[in-house]
Amino acid sequence: MSTYTIRRATMSVYGLIGLGAMGMGMAQSMVRSGLETWAFDLNPEALRAFAGEGGNAAASVADAASRADVLALVVVNAAQVEDVLFGSGRAADHLKPGSLVIACSTVKPEDAENAATRLAAQGILFLDAPISGGAAKAMRGEITMMASGSDAAFAKADPVIRAATTKLYRMGDVPGKGSAMKIVHQLLAGVHIAAAAEGMAFGLRMGLDPQLVYDVVTNAAGNSWMFENRMAHVLAADYTPLSAVDIFVKDLGLVLDSTRKVMFPSPLAAAAHQQFINASAAGFGREDDSAVIKVFPGISLPEKKA
Amino acid sequence: MSTYTIRRATMSVYGLIGLGAMGMGMAQSMVRSGLETWAFDLNPEALRAFAGEGGNAAASVADAASRADVLALVVVNAAQVEDVLFGSGRAADHLKPGSLVIACSTVKPEDAENAATRLAAQGILFLDAPISGGAAKAMRGEITMMASGSDAAFAKADPVIRAATTKLYRMGDVPGKGSAMKIVHQLLAGVHIAAAAEGMAFGLRMGLDPQLVYDVVTNAAGNSWMFENRMAHVLAADYTPLSAVDIFVKDLGLVLDSTRKVMFPSPLAAAAHQQFINASAAGFGREDDSAVIKVFPGISLPEKKA
Repeated sequence: MSTYTIRRATMSVYGLIGLGAMGMGMAQSMVRSGLETWAFDLNPEALRAFAGEGGNAAASVADAASRADVLALVVVNAAQVEDVLFGSGRAADHLKPGSLVIACSTVKPEDAENAATRLAAQGILFLDAPISGGAAKAMRGEITMMASGSDAAFAKADPVIRAATTKLYRMGDVPGKGSAMKIVHQLLAGVHIAAAAEGMAFGLRMGLDPQLVYDVVTNAAGNSWMFENRMAHVLAADYTPLSAVDIFVKDLGLVLDSTRKVMFPSPLAAAAHQQFINASAAGFGREDDSAVIKVFPGISLPEKKA
Repeated sequence: MSTYTIRRATMSVYGLIGLGAMGMGMAQSMVRSGLETWAFDLNPEALRAFAGEGGNAAASVADAASRADVLALVVVNAAQVEDVLFGSGRAADHLKPGSLVIACSTVKPEDAENAATRLAAQGILFLDAPISGGAAKAMRGEITMMASGSDAAFAKADPVIRAATTKLYRMGDVPGKGSAMKIVHQLLAGVHIAAAAEGMAFGLRMGLDPQLVYDVVTNAAGNSWMFENRMAHVLAADYTPLSAVDIFVKDLGLVLDSTRKVMFPSPLAAAAHQQFINASAAGFGREDDSAVIKVFPGISLPEKKA
């Protein structure tokens, strides 16, 4: 009995806000690893799905935050991080001193630094921990995390890292570096999708067989992870939004905000951003980001097989 | 003895013009496969090196062309193809009717079409057969070839294809399609190198460890073949020109000529082209194409380890 009591006393409780594509997989991975996990999302269906997998549905951000020793934020953008921590969610007021916030959203480095500073004033630790990998990998606990923060923050985050990630890159000991790495990653990812679309579209314009273009490129030096992944969607004419055009309107916007802030040229990111803006303006913002190929005139894209 | 005579009578003779990085490997692969191969290059050292590997050094383009049943052109650009076939080299006048030209240079589709038409008037077959893979793969006989032409042209090229390539993509039955595919490939390759430089440079600007940036990107969705290959050169501070900046000044120029000819937008290729032009103008044209990263101001690139 005493063993049980001690064990209870030292076991941490985990919270997670944002049961989207990545957050749901991460939360379920935490539950599967035996972590007591309280999640919240504004979408009641996502909450019910999480409870169905053995998770605990919190009643609100405040409910999750007041229970949690470690609170992971897997929300869409910096505005939502701000709202959860300091706005309507007021998580910062409910978290205990000594607790930890793991911030997984893609934000500008200074947004991560600012949140960390405000939380530190209340004795709350912060891990700047953007993630990558997509929904399928998240569900399998195979997220890639690029994180920066103090040793204490990493130590407290360890059970979540073990549960949800297979690759952790420690980018430094201060918040901001993790988000800086994610910005670089999104620059490349966004440019590669726009380039893939430009190359495939021009191949179609020249009368090449799109399947042959795909086969050649994916077996040659012109390949990218994004070409291989996203042009498969184009070949299948499947624009179901695994990640939407508007995500790259946002993320390349963050890239350009960040490069301009330190007066650094980024012509390819700027050109790619315009392509995603063009696609969104044409009505494809909520389609899969490979739908950026729909901005090219005068070509016939592959059609869905019957 | 009669068997020997018949065998001699039906064995083809092979010629190759252009013993550069790709041509040398291709010619040596042909020799290793037992093909009687006569090569010519304006550089006497390259010719001596080829002879040292058991190849036959031709005295001139005309010498190689007059011996060859199959003549491979592995020269730098369309101007050299024109010069070898119809200009100072006059190969077209020395080739026999029924012989085959395999054109491996990166050229515009219409250049391939025009050469094929002029040779066809003399009864000479043409295979539009751009290649990819780099010098090391060429030396191992592991070239990737994207080719178009008649069945007769493919059949006659077969011993060369078997000797020098491990991947052949048949892009169609008329010249032009092979070169169109290569143009698409170079669009992607060039954009990816410029994007890799932009991402790595911005990571450096934000104070990230370049080796960590490399590790994260090459293990995540932001990776490209070119990022993985070329940023290794940047990390090693080794700008030995395996493929030079000026090659992409040329090749992205061909891409933009081709897109403009059919009035097709290619904003990423245009932005990447400007980066390579910038690098060449700054004096880095003959360095490795990864030296395009040197256009970014205000960063310290990795230095060579002592």
